[in-house]
Order: sequence, then C-alpha cells, then structure tokens
Amino acid sequence: MASINFQGIATEFVNHYYTTFDSDRKNLAALYRENSMLTFESSQSLGAASILEKLTNLPFQKIKHHISALDAQPTPNGGIIILVIGQLAVDDETNPLPYSQAFQLCQDPAGQWFVFNDIFKLVIG
Amino acid sequence: MASINFQGIATEFVNHYYTTFDSDRKNLAALYRENSMLTFESSQSLGAASILEKLTNLPFQKIKHHISALDAQPTPNGGIIILVIGQLAVDDETNPLPYSQAFQLCQDPAGQWFVFNDIFKLVIG
Repeated sequence: MASINFQGIATEFVNHYYTTFDSDRKNLAALYRENSMLTFESSQSLGAASILEKLTNLPFQKIKHHISALDAQPTPNGGIIILVIGQLAVDDETNPLPYSQAFQLCQDPAGQWFVFNDIFKLVIG
Repeated sequence: MASINFQGIATEFVNHYYTTFDSDRKNLAALYRENSMLTFESSQSLGAASILEKLTNLPFQKIKHHISALDAQPTPNGGIIILVIGQLAVDDETNPLPYSQAFQLCQDPAGQWFVFNDIFKLVIG
C-alpha cells in the first residue's frame, strides 16, 4: 500500500516493544518522545517522562506478553498504524488476560521510529 | 491533548459507524475515500469501492455490534486514532464474539471526517 515496508517495521517494532516491556520496562523510554501519548486502560499520559512513570508504576513485578495477531497500515503522515491482539500474564497468575493495543509509529528527524500514539486496553467480555 | 474535541468526535463517529453497519452496511460507503485502507481479519482492501465490496460480501445477513470500550487520541496530521473493543453477533448466533477495531479518522478538504485507516480483528483466545 506504500513504499515503506510497513509490515516488516511493525513486526520488528512490536517484538522489540514487548521483549523490552517484559525484561525491564524502564527501557521503553527510548521508544517515546515529548509529544507521545499513552492511553492505558483509559488513563491518559502525555510525554515520555509521564508515560514511563505510568508504565514503571504498574502494580506487578513480572509480566509476559504473547502476541496473537498483528496488522499494520501506512498512515497519511508517513507513519504506521498497528493493531495488536495478545495475551498477558502478570506475576504468578496462570490465567493470561486478552488485550488489544493500537500504536501509531512516526519517524523523528534522524529517521528513528518512535511511538506517537499508544492505546492499551484489556479485553473483558 | 489537542484543541479538537477528539473524544466527542470519536464517540459520535463510532456510534454512527456501527449503527450504519448493523442497519445497511452498503451505506458505509460515505465514510471511506479513494485512499482509505481496510484490513479485515488480515485481508487488505484499498479504496472505498474495494472496501465496500469486502464489507457487503461478508457471509452473514444480520449483524449486531456492541461497543464495550472506546479510547481516542489526536494524531500528528490533525486526525484521530480510535481503539474500540466490542462484541458482535451475526445472524441467529447467540454467543457474541469479542473483537477489536482500530480507526484513524482524517478530515477531507470540506472538513468532513472520513476513515483513512481501518483494522478489524476478532479476539480469539
């Protein structure tokens, strides 16, 4: 649909994002910028510092994400929109929880991809 | 997070979208443009005509969407990204299926909101 390899960039980004989240989530800082937005379970954070504070203070010690599906499309400003469906398990919980997460990735002036939009929501039936 | 009332526009759009989908889905044509993209269960369609062909040929007669959650953010190009979590029931099926759908809305030169990006995925555990 566009000249960038949006599906490949999306897959690489999502794998890197959840690997980082599951190993040491404070390292997610590198993926956000001053104007990035996070809506986590309908709670809004604006900017990398505020987003990192939100993510590092989530009330669990261990987390493991499993990606079930990932679809991506190019966006009008040269970005990439991604919809992830997955499951996550926190601490010693044995029942994983289904979740959905939408990202929009953009490129900074140095060509580095970062998260502009990030919306996370558990799927509760 | 921005001067447009993105949450209000998103809520109004999503309600209109699913009401139209559930009553007569060929009327969704008005919400897409030549450069709109749909990824429906990982199958890609580009442009309003192709998207409408995909949506109107889905193999059910009746469908009913129920929105469980809706979150929205402004995007860099003056658009709105939306993540919907919902459930849908087709025909006489009594067990609704959970799904997730991500939209990016943009404004055309006349100021009309339309769907630029649309990614739909059933949530299968």
